[in-house]
Amino acid sequence: MKLSKILSIATIACIGFVSQATAGEIKLSDAEMKKATQVYFDRCAGCHGMLRKGALGPSLEASKSKEMGTETLKYIINNGTPGGMPGWGKTGELTAAETELMAKYIQIKAPQPPEKSMADMKKTHKILVPVKDRPKSPEAKNWKDYFAVILRDVGKIAIVDGVTKDVVSVVPSGFATHITRTGASGRYMYVIGRDGKASMIDLWMKEPKNVAEIRTCNDARAIDTSKHPDYKDKYAIVGCYWPPSIVTLEADTLEPLKIVSTASYTYDENVFTREARVAAIIASHDKPEWVVNIKETGQVWLYDYSNVMNPKITMVEAERFLHDGGWDLSKRYFMTAANAKNIISVIDTKEGKLVANIPSQGNKPHPGRGVNVDHPKYGPIWGSGHIGSNDIIFIGTDPEKHPKNAWKVVKKIALPGEGGGNLFVKGHPNSQYIFADRPVNPNRELQTQIYVIDRDSLEVVKTIKIPKKYLKSGMTEDGKEVKARGPVHFEFNADGSEVWTSIWGNKLQASPILVFDTKTLKLKNVIDDKRLITPTGKFNVTNTMTDTY
Amino acid sequence: MKLSKILSIATIACIGFVSQATAGEIKLSDAEMKKATQVYFDRCAGCHGMLRKGALGPSLEASKSKEMGTETLKYIINNGTPGGMPGWGKTGELTAAETELMAKYIQIKAPQPPEKSMADMKKTHKILVPVKDRPKSPEAKNWKDYFAVILRDVGKIAIVDGVTKDVVSVVPSGFATHITRTGASGRYMYVIGRDGKASMIDLWMKEPKNVAEIRTCNDARAIDTSKHPDYKDKYAIVGCYWPPSIVTLEADTLEPLKIVSTASYTYDENVFTREARVAAIIASHDKPEWVVNIKETGQVWLYDYSNVMNPKITMVEAERFLHDGGWDLSKRYFMTAANAKNIISVIDTKEGKLVANIPSQGNKPHPGRGVNVDHPKYGPIWGSGHIGSNDIIFIGTDPEKHPKNAWKVVKKIALPGEGGGNLFVKGHPNSQYIFADRPVNPNRELQTQIYVIDRDSLEVVKTIKIPKKYLKSGMTEDGKEVKARGPVHFEFNADGSEVWTSIWGNKLQASPILVFDTKTLKLKNVIDDKRLITPTGKFNVTNTMTDTY
Repeated sequence: MKLSKILSIATIACIGFVSQATAGEIKLSDAEMKKATQVYFDRCAGCHGMLRKGALGPSLEASKSKEMGTETLKYIINNGTPGGMPGWGKTGELTAAETELMAKYIQIKAPQPPEKSMADMKKTHKILVPVKDRPKSPEAKNWKDYFAVILRDVGKIAIVDGVTKDVVSVVPSGFATHITRTGASGRYMYVIGRDGKASMIDLWMKEPKNVAEIRTCNDARAIDTSKHPDYKDKYAIVGCYWPPSIVTLEADTLEPLKIVSTASYTYDENVFTREARVAAIIASHDKPEWVVNIKETGQVWLYDYSNVMNPKITMVEAERFLHDGGWDLSKRYFMTAANAKNIISVIDTKEGKLVANIPSQGNKPHPGRGVNVDHPKYGPIWGSGHIGSNDIIFIGTDPEKHPKNAWKVVKKIALPGEGGGNLFVKGHPNSQYIFADRPVNPNRELQTQIYVIDRDSLEVVKTIKIPKKYLKSGMTEDGKEVKARGPVHFEFNADGSEVWTSIWGNKLQASPILVFDTKTLKLKNVIDDKRLITPTGKFNVTNTMTDTY
Repeated sequence: MKLSKILSIATIACIGFVSQATAGEIKLSDAEMKKATQVYFDRCAGCHGMLRKGALGPSLEASKSKEMGTETLKYIINNGTPGGMPGWGKTGELTAAETELMAKYIQIKAPQPPEKSMADMKKTHKILVPVKDRPKSPEAKNWKDYFAVILRDVGKIAIVDGVTKDVVSVVPSGFATHITRTGASGRYMYVIGRDGKASMIDLWMKEPKNVAEIRTCNDARAIDTSKHPDYKDKYAIVGCYWPPSIVTLEADTLEPLKIVSTASYTYDENVFTREARVAAIIASHDKPEWVVNIKETGQVWLYDYSNVMNPKITMVEAERFLHDGGWDLSKRYFMTAANAKNIISVIDTKEGKLVANIPSQGNKPHPGRGVNVDHPKYGPIWGSGHIGSNDIIFIGTDPEKHPKNAWKVVKKIALPGEGGGNLFVKGHPNSQYIFADRPVNPNRELQTQIYVIDRDSLEVVKTIKIPKKYLKSGMTEDGKEVKARGPVHFEFNADGSEVWTSIWGNKLQASPILVFDTKTLKLKNVIDDKRLITPTGKFNVTNTMTDTY
């Protein structure tokens, strides 16, 4: 029996035991409601939804929560569940009082979150440096090898020179930035915060800074740009969690142009879903098209932006709940995870249709954008890890030259040790090795290693322990020690000779970026700068421009 | 000063005068709420929306209604307004008690109307006669010249033989059927009730009857079918008012296949609109495409059904609030009224874009599908009347051979007498005359005439008074006399030698269909059958199949 299954049963037993303690009528003061609404948004909405209808996490509708009762809910919020729910109390993110508050809050009917019109957005739109005042040519030579590093908990982006390793600037961004993407030319780095604030950094500046910003949503996860040659650097797109929508912007000013609602019917049961959120977005290089995951309804929308005010959308049925994904090696097929169903959906963007729903053979696939390898035996393959199990899988993606391998798991390997916790698997055409992290594995040792997979044998050939000196603990105000998680996320430099990972530290102090040589696997540089607080995602300009992963 | 303007000012004055009488907290019993909700749905939702945000009629949100107060609202509900609001009390549709109930009801927050999933729809789906049990060939010879006649207030459809004038059958339909449409082959007549019940009548049967039915919405106005040769008789489409959505069905069984939400952002201000209702739908003959009016958001959606489970939708910005419309003579351009803005929007379905927003030069255009004429001077033109003014307009629709006339009003004529009240203007290629009705003009004489327009001079050349014997009054239970309105709606027989109109009577007794010779303009037949209660819309099979109007 899997660990997760055992713990699942334990949780159910526990619920049975404490559910007698259900309190009567729950009442919260205005101040408590305000605080709880904010905590819910910060910690809970991502998985359970603003309307609490559930997505990756289960439904938390008030009637259901009320049945469970305050004590059970406190227990779960404090300790987490094996299904992937973090133990917010245990990890020190919530105090005991906050845990109790949240246990009560989710027994009260969800407040209706606000809508956002074009007029609302425009009020937050700022052109910080007009186009005419920006550099006419790059002011520093290495800009195409810059890395944008997300400093998650402080809402900032560090721009780090990939050659010199200098932190060339640190610019403010939205709250808990999720990702950054470049335009087709690479000049601008587009940033989306979880609070729906989009901003753009001009990398041609000697000291790169924000040149425009706008808040397009109350909650967001995705941003990308028009990458078709005829529309190079013309449009940006933001995918909103709330209000569930797609917002198109001018790429050089972030001026909003068009909002399209993603409220839709589930692909399978045809049930109306107000909260049909935009998860991953990817830009086609061959068509004037964005590929947009509609999480709750299991549809992939192929959004033709060529007539920007009159978009054409092909609504492809895929699987629920769509989360992240990336291109195959040919950039024709979008490989995306329906993580709650353990499915990888494959969208053929040339034909505009679903090719396959492939069982991922693991628990909760989380590819990020995944990893591509042109393999000597299997041909082009794409790989992903899992949050809920230690499986790394590789799927054949070339139906023409390798039809026998196409759209099936051709290789499955296990990361050593029990449990999942992998978030990212990353490669580069010039690197013999693929790298995997495991920052959300509960085992401290497994959490703090890097897993190195050989691209030919597709086996884990090495694990790299992160030296303790780079894993800095912090002390909270109430004297609790908060440990740094292990390494998270990888990015290569432009030529693939180095791979960078960040130590997912805490808000209390700086945490380093470690740079490894991709040939020798030796630690080559430690980028340790006091401004690097909670470095997480890293995006190299050249690799992001070209969708190399 | 126009009559409507004078009355408008009078209404405002009245509101000012009585608004002091605003009552305190309004409370209704469950029975009253239930009754009021039904009356609201039957009489108010069409113009004001289920969520009361307004469309053709103004917003009736509770806060606004409360400011007006019960006495003012009673006055308006009883007497109507010059803007087009019917005087429901005055016309006998609502009793004094019902008028008061509704005045109170709209001061209470609108209840959330229910959603409808595929599972909900399937519960109401009935195949009454399986495909295998239906005739293999037509059992009566004149079926292509049959007329489907809507018996509005009794929820039935009469099938009338266009040659013999026999009522060959009367079949049940949904409540207050709005329109009927045929499939591409003409065999089936598809019917949509205001209550969202779709049904289909097999015209090959000796005695045509319903062979399938389903309730796809709670409120609906539009139905059509796939008319592209490759998809002949393959799909039907229902456009829902509530839940706002597009439902695709199998054409031979009404088995539901796919639901697409039309909740969207207004084209101009980009404001999210949950209640973005589907008004007119028209089927392209050249592409596998339906043209769908999204009323509140002012978008026309070009819905490509070729991959039925993965539709492709081009969202064209047009104007608010889109209502009805039809093809130009070439069936390339969709001519549609944004009636609240007095605009005719023209959609080029070949290029998939808006061509023009043309001021209609009248008040509240109501084309139905409009009228097409190949005019000796202007070339192909399309015409419409208005509800709120007596203007009949003709617009040039041939930008290639008659570019000077294209997309402008080339001719505007006035129906004799003051005020609008026109609902339909109809023509046929074999008829020298175009016919116009005026059933909602308040003047009894104007209301009970037919207006005959010559297709060459484009002038009103004759008015035909309906003899009093065909305008039968009825007595309500409480002894109120209810007069029959005048003639409403026209339809030609297949060869255009006859035009049919119905006398819009009341539920209390039968009302005739009058048949005129289109050459002599003489009354040729009176179809008087006791089953013909409130005959309104009439749809000839051949003309509906071929979009001839």
